[in-house]
Amino acid sequence: MPGDRSRARGGIDLGGTKIEAAIFDEQHSVLGSARHATPTRGGPADVAREMELALRDAAAAAKLEPHELAGVGAGSPGEVEDGTVRNARNLPGWEGPFPLAETLARALGCAVVVGNDVQVATYAEFRLGAGRPYSSLLGVFWGTGVGGGVILDGEPWRGRGGAGEIGHMVIKIGGARCTCGRRGCMEAYAGRAAMEAHARRLVDKGRKTELFKLMRQHEHTRLTSGIWARALERRDELAISIIDRAVDALGAGIASAVNLIDVEAVIIGGGLGVRFGEDYARRISAAMHPHLFADATPPDVHTSALGDLGGAIGASLLIG
Amino acid sequence: MPGDRSRARGGIDLGGTKIEAAIFDEQHSVLGSARHATPTRGGPADVAREMELALRDAAAAAKLEPHELAGVGAGSPGEVEDGTVRNARNLPGWEGPFPLAETLARALGCAVVVGNDVQVATYAEFRLGAGRPYSSLLGVFWGTGVGGGVILDGEPWRGRGGAGEIGHMVIKIGGARCTCGRRGCMEAYAGRAAMEAHARRLVDKGRKTELFKLMRQHEHTRLTSGIWARALERRDELAISIIDRAVDALGAGIASAVNLIDVEAVIIGGGLGVRFGEDYARRISAAMHPHLFADATPPDVHTSALGDLGGAIGASLLIG
Repeated sequence: MPGDRSRARGGIDLGGTKIEAAIFDEQHSVLGSARHATPTRGGPADVAREMELALRDAAAAAKLEPHELAGVGAGSPGEVEDGTVRNARNLPGWEGPFPLAETLARALGCAVVVGNDVQVATYAEFRLGAGRPYSSLLGVFWGTGVGGGVILDGEPWRGRGGAGEIGHMVIKIGGARCTCGRRGCMEAYAGRAAMEAHARRLVDKGRKTELFKLMRQHEHTRLTSGIWARALERRDELAISIIDRAVDALGAGIASAVNLIDVEAVIIGGGLGVRFGEDYARRISAAMHPHLFADATPPDVHTSALGDLGGAIGASLLIG
Repeated sequence: MPGDRSRARGGIDLGGTKIEAAIFDEQHSVLGSARHATPTRGGPADVAREMELALRDAAAAAKLEPHELAGVGAGSPGEVEDGTVRNARNLPGWEGPFPLAETLARALGCAVVVGNDVQVATYAEFRLGAGRPYSSLLGVFWGTGVGGGVILDGEPWRGRGGAGEIGHMVIKIGGARCTCGRRGCMEAYAGRAAMEAHARRLVDKGRKTELFKLMRQHEHTRLTSGIWARALERRDELAISIIDRAVDALGAGIASAVNLIDVEAVIIGGGLGVRFGEDYARRISAAMHPHLFADATPPDVHTSALGDLGGAIGASLLIG
């Protein structure tokens, strides 16, 4: 039985490369969806306009007008407070605060609630995905960076608003330079942006790899999750060694987090996490083991069940 | 006005070197206290017997019989569940489960509740000490090892029972061997046992230090907090470099924890933490800064306000 369309909700996942928008019924089934490229120039107003257009396309696919929706949730990178977003890394010119919820609400003619992208995706996995059996879990989003979301006792834990920065836990004091400017962060070894920069440095030093040839063949300008996956299938030695290093870093960082907060489960999502799937969830679990203090009771480790749509579903859950 | 003596409670803090017992009135003032050495041989029953004797001495000092107390709380290292303790590191022959609460209750003739030592000490700082102004905090007990306690939203967070192992967060993947057998843990750089082992190795390699001369002069068999403090006062180069390394490790590990759970405050206790005081709380805060993701809003960092008695006070709070 299809859900009541009059209670349909929108969800927008704002990422560094793409904007996913979808319309869901009350059973969280997709009524329509759309994907737009994230603007790489301009500023927050241009990004908000593209979010509006993506949501309009998703609504059109669901044969609904935005103003007919019960509301729209949006997940955004950066610091989110009362609908205002600041310091959204990987988005053009978005350092200062921008009133995203108010801007979208005026443009769409319906209620809009904004949350942090990683926190809403973690909550979606907890409520509807791989995290359903657990009351405490850590979401680890392995993509361009490495983001984290924390659920404790059935509720999101946000601390003073900045909790979950698992990618910036230190796994090697004095170690590799991170994209955040600091040294030795887990993301400096496991984030896709850092992995690509590392590959380029090694190529400059004369190491051989098919990574960049594959990138050009597939007409990409960056080493996407798909390019890494193809290079691994071809047993490209450089790609294998960089991915091994990333898995070791994830193992150490996630085990550290578990030693501190002792959650029941770890859910691995993000572009690389979704692409690599359960095999890599098992590899990450094995890499955690030597660092787990209570190694007789390791947490369960799963891949996200909601995949690429988890961010948009989680955003739609912001509408009560 | 003195508290009602009929509601007096006992607290016992079981440490690797000493047992602190004290009797408190309802305002948490000390009515009597005693300190016994922890047995280094025998097994859990011998340790429990010494805890009983310490509590009896403290009660005698308060002019009370144990059976007159509202109850006795005890903080123990290791895994505590329903009054049973297992895997109590640094205590003789205490791997398997031992019914500590039941044993003490029968011996003392009053109700006994047992909790984890670091968790009760953290709770004491939260309720009565340096943590009073905060609703979320991390207690870091810098002593023989490095223990941690977590308070979130005004309540202890224990996870599945093993939360707070901040000493075993990885700060250097592939790094120094820890007393737990793993590599690269914060405790491998900052724990007093690891620091002493490191000093001995450097002396074996020909480095000069007054640490072991001071130890013998003060008739100790280990490098106590006091010995480290004296060596620093004398500007002993080896001691300075090992303590600097420990502070850097604490900075990286605590900052990692804050990046994950974003607490309002960090309270530094333990033998070294209490001995070194506020100057070192400031040094640790400075060492955290380069690793804090939200470095514009660092948590407050304080030394424990309850000092050596915090463990016994916290244990007494287990009696409602």
